[in-house]
Amino acid sequence: MCGIVGYVGPREAYPILIKGLQRLEYRGYDSAGVIMLQSGDFNLYKKAGKVKNLQQYAEEHDILGNIGIGHTRWATHGVPNDTNAHPHVSNSGRFAIIHNGIIENYASLKEQLKKRGYTFHSDTDTEVLINLIEEVQKQEQVALEDAVRIALNEVVGAYAIVIIDREDSDCLIAARKGSPLVVGVGKDEFFIASDASPIIEYTKNVVYLDDQEYVVVNRNGRMQIRTLGNIEKTPFIEELEMDLEAIEKGGFDHFMLKEIYEQPKVIADAVRGRMSAEEGWIRLGGVSEYINRINQAKRFIITACGTSYHAGLLGEYLLEELSRVPVEVEYASEFRYRNPIITENDVVLAISQSGETADTLAAIELAKERQALIYGICNVIGSSIARATHAGSYTHAGPEIGVASTKAFSTQVVILTLLSLQIAQHKGTISTSYLRQVLYELKNIPEKIKQTLKLDKQIQEIAAKFKDASNFLYLGRGVNFPVALEGALKLKEISYIHAEGYPAAEMKHGPIALIDDQMPVVVLATNASAHDKIVSNIQEVKARNGKVIAVVNEGDLEIASLADYTIEIPVTEEILSPLLTVVPLQLLSYHIALMRGTNVDQPRNLAKSVTVE
Amino acid sequence: MCGIVGYVGPREAYPILIKGLQRLEYRGYDSAGVIMLQSGDFNLYKKAGKVKNLQQYAEEHDILGNIGIGHTRWATHGVPNDTNAHPHVSNSGRFAIIHNGIIENYASLKEQLKKRGYTFHSDTDTEVLINLIEEVQKQEQVALEDAVRIALNEVVGAYAIVIIDREDSDCLIAARKGSPLVVGVGKDEFFIASDASPIIEYTKNVVYLDDQEYVVVNRNGRMQIRTLGNIEKTPFIEELEMDLEAIEKGGFDHFMLKEIYEQPKVIADAVRGRMSAEEGWIRLGGVSEYINRINQAKRFIITACGTSYHAGLLGEYLLEELSRVPVEVEYASEFRYRNPIITENDVVLAISQSGETADTLAAIELAKERQALIYGICNVIGSSIARATHAGSYTHAGPEIGVASTKAFSTQVVILTLLSLQIAQHKGTISTSYLRQVLYELKNIPEKIKQTLKLDKQIQEIAAKFKDASNFLYLGRGVNFPVALEGALKLKEISYIHAEGYPAAEMKHGPIALIDDQMPVVVLATNASAHDKIVSNIQEVKARNGKVIAVVNEGDLEIASLADYTIEIPVTEEILSPLLTVVPLQLLSYHIALMRGTNVDQPRNLAKSVTVE
Repeated sequence: MCGIVGYVGPREAYPILIKGLQRLEYRGYDSAGVIMLQSGDFNLYKKAGKVKNLQQYAEEHDILGNIGIGHTRWATHGVPNDTNAHPHVSNSGRFAIIHNGIIENYASLKEQLKKRGYTFHSDTDTEVLINLIEEVQKQEQVALEDAVRIALNEVVGAYAIVIIDREDSDCLIAARKGSPLVVGVGKDEFFIASDASPIIEYTKNVVYLDDQEYVVVNRNGRMQIRTLGNIEKTPFIEELEMDLEAIEKGGFDHFMLKEIYEQPKVIADAVRGRMSAEEGWIRLGGVSEYINRINQAKRFIITACGTSYHAGLLGEYLLEELSRVPVEVEYASEFRYRNPIITENDVVLAISQSGETADTLAAIELAKERQALIYGICNVIGSSIARATHAGSYTHAGPEIGVASTKAFSTQVVILTLLSLQIAQHKGTISTSYLRQVLYELKNIPEKIKQTLKLDKQIQEIAAKFKDASNFLYLGRGVNFPVALEGALKLKEISYIHAEGYPAAEMKHGPIALIDDQMPVVVLATNASAHDKIVSNIQEVKARNGKVIAVVNEGDLEIASLADYTIEIPVTEEILSPLLTVVPLQLLSYHIALMRGTNVDQPRNLAKSVTVE
Repeated sequence: MCGIVGYVGPREAYPILIKGLQRLEYRGYDSAGVIMLQSGDFNLYKKAGKVKNLQQYAEEHDILGNIGIGHTRWATHGVPNDTNAHPHVSNSGRFAIIHNGIIENYASLKEQLKKRGYTFHSDTDTEVLINLIEEVQKQEQVALEDAVRIALNEVVGAYAIVIIDREDSDCLIAARKGSPLVVGVGKDEFFIASDASPIIEYTKNVVYLDDQEYVVVNRNGRMQIRTLGNIEKTPFIEELEMDLEAIEKGGFDHFMLKEIYEQPKVIADAVRGRMSAEEGWIRLGGVSEYINRINQAKRFIITACGTSYHAGLLGEYLLEELSRVPVEVEYASEFRYRNPIITENDVVLAISQSGETADTLAAIELAKERQALIYGICNVIGSSIARATHAGSYTHAGPEIGVASTKAFSTQVVILTLLSLQIAQHKGTISTSYLRQVLYELKNIPEKIKQTLKLDKQIQEIAAKFKDASNFLYLGRGVNFPVALEGALKLKEISYIHAEGYPAAEMKHGPIALIDDQMPVVVLATNASAHDKIVSNIQEVKARNGKVIAVVNEGDLEIASLADYTIEIPVTEEILSPLLTVVPLQLLSYHIALMRGTNVDQPRNLAKSVTVE
């Protein structure tokens, strides 16, 4: 996730770029930059932080030029600082690029370019790409658009890019693979952006670039689209009907819903380049470097707050089951105020979407004093927790705007799964065949989430039945117990209904007293290993006239015959099932909250990132 | 807790004894026994199990005699079997005794008696006492009542006893110290019992024996009361006004309330003979025997369900804080269905009031297969879990009849405290001065609970304000976090109000969305180590118009000025404070449930002992 904007036409580019970046800030706000071309010279300004910082800085300088590109960054490679901000300029100074996405093979490309004398100023994959294009252009002596096409065919990864050429003030070239790109068509002017929000003010006529296509737009009104295979396509111009806010939310009513629907994509992002089912390997950042300490760890301590704590509980199941090392999960706020037992033989996993959670940060500092190895799992690159840890993996979920966390949770779980598998492989606690089986299935998860998302309509109907409930229970066993907690927390957070999660078997030790015909009970019933037990739990609830909403594996007729409502999701490996079972719970909370008229994206009393203790 | 009954007079004794024992069964039902004296011979019958078993067995034999005593047992020393059942007969066969309570110095007395040629058939302290009386009577050549007085002056402990003499068919002798005893006065007949329930059918005139008194009752209608210091007292005959049910409940409206009020006594029972603050030692059953394995344990795993699970969470704080060994707490139901990491280097603590909890029992079996040392903390002696463990300590809370556990929890916490201290002392992880300080304070806890119970009226008023609430939150930090969970569970169980416990600092990561002017929040605010943080948490709740009921240390004006209702309890050592903070929460639940008209002792859907998975 990053925001991209470009302009060529008769107007001044800078005001259009800066306004566009502000509208795209929901896509990232680590750093921002613009470049304008005026009389054969680039005016380049880049700043860490929000677009506002860039604006203050740029407007003290020359910002003229009627062609230019701009970028607001959500860091993936390299910390968010001025140098790593986009645009990036090629070694010769002729080409500049803005980029959204990840170039997976950038390390090997970088090595090749270094051998040919290229130097690099930033840690980004983006700078590698623009120099690759420059090198191709020089070697092959072709037009820039051909150089771009040839270079992109050498690249593995996902991207949307826009390129500007210092020697051609009439042209912008843009391409996409996996990341969105829209071209706004005006009279002798073009706008390019990640979505239509920077464009709609100027024109309602847009062309959505398809995957593996690139476009050349020209000041004279000419627009040419070709595939990366060099086949010409006729631009399909459509008229925008959405308003600005709807565009920012990608056509969804709320950021939360958009983020729920983004899960297939961000999970694919989270595993990209980190595993190969075919070749049977996993490579998470930071693990190899510390593999000895990790392998010899006597204990893993997972510390986190809120939704991340639930991911941590799931991490306990995964790490213990797969890599056979004892795991302790602690609320960060409790951990730091005790005198916890931590030694240099322990590995502390800290999980936080924002990377700024004050309690978690304080827990890390305490664990560091005791010499433990600290491994971070954060979403925001360069955040305080990411910097405070010895090693870590980013979740690559992109900015999460909805206060109730959804895609951040899923990607945290993916990282914990990969981490558990990687350690298990090193320790030899799982067989190669089982490892591959899980990795293959992990590759299938995005597709299975897409199938699960198709149940939205059915879940909406269930929500309508229970929107007036004043209480909910969520039950799960094994890996689905943390999902029950998470489902309950989602409902609490956005609908303000008092919902509570429990291990299913614990219900009879107290909470079952709450059950009557007013009490909806959501049961996560996908665990093949405990199916009979779950059936018994459902019968216990039904015997007290509770209303059961069961999330089951496709074709589970036994539970369907007992439950009042059954949500059938695709079958998967049991240890991966939380990635699917959590989705209907997210949607259920969303729809109930919507029907109750609460502010879904900014629920009362809550903040996105809790930076106080 | 045991039930005691005796009769002398013109009627057949057996029907009175057996009916009395049935009424006293709420005091214990491990084993039962009766002895009748007829024509200079004892008719003695004893059976493990409920009174019904005894009745079936006895009625196949000669049950005649118009003087006799009977007993229903709640095991404290020795497993519940026929041999350990009361009455116990002295070596000569002349004296028989029934006994409720614990003789602390029985081991040394037993050694002395063995040296003098006495033999023992049971594992009980009771058999030691009756032989001590016999020995005194022989050596001193005094009347039985004098022998009893002299012997009791050698004994350390608490008791209520009744003694019958084969050579005197007119007399019963009874004495008490710490355990209740009532004498029913009829025409030329006397009834003796633990409470008035076996008596009320025959007479309403009773004498309540005072502590350190003994009584001799005679078939001719004569009754003589003396102190153990041999001073004669005039019997004070009062008329019973209570009905049968009220007597069984000790004058309380419900067993649960009675059990809440029993906590000072049962905590004193739980520590009796197991520690000395003056001498700075702790001796828990089973610990010394396994001290090497316990000292070398890499990890403690505590497994339990329901309220016992909350005691376990508290055990984690105590063990980690005091003895510096890593502790993992697991729901038994979750533990057993995973493939948990347990080795012969681990110690598994299993906690269960009934000792019959199916999930906990299954978890123990799993841990035993993996060669871990299993230590049990149960209330019911000789229960399945007590038998399945390698070692353990009983909580000595007496039978808990109310389904919602109260005194069992407190005594579990006491055992966990003693265990943590004993291990800490062995490992040298705490100073002798701190150890003594905690032990002295532990001795003071029963008195401080008594002071806390005096707040009942105030808590009743608070209950009246919130009885119609549909939700409650309970917040606590550190050792008070498990108490928050337990307080919430109590309210759930008996009032059917949805209550949830949270670590106070975790609230801002989600649950705070629930807070509005309809939401009562109970805050446990006695932790001196986190006072400022708790003040902040209360302010967060107040800022959202939540209603705060705070449990604070006496004299905490700061929190009193913030909270809507403040419950001031005595100050104690922070690690012991759960023993006090839980008490107002038990009372609050009780009064709210009562006002809502639920069945406090047998709440819907619940069972006292969950013997199914």
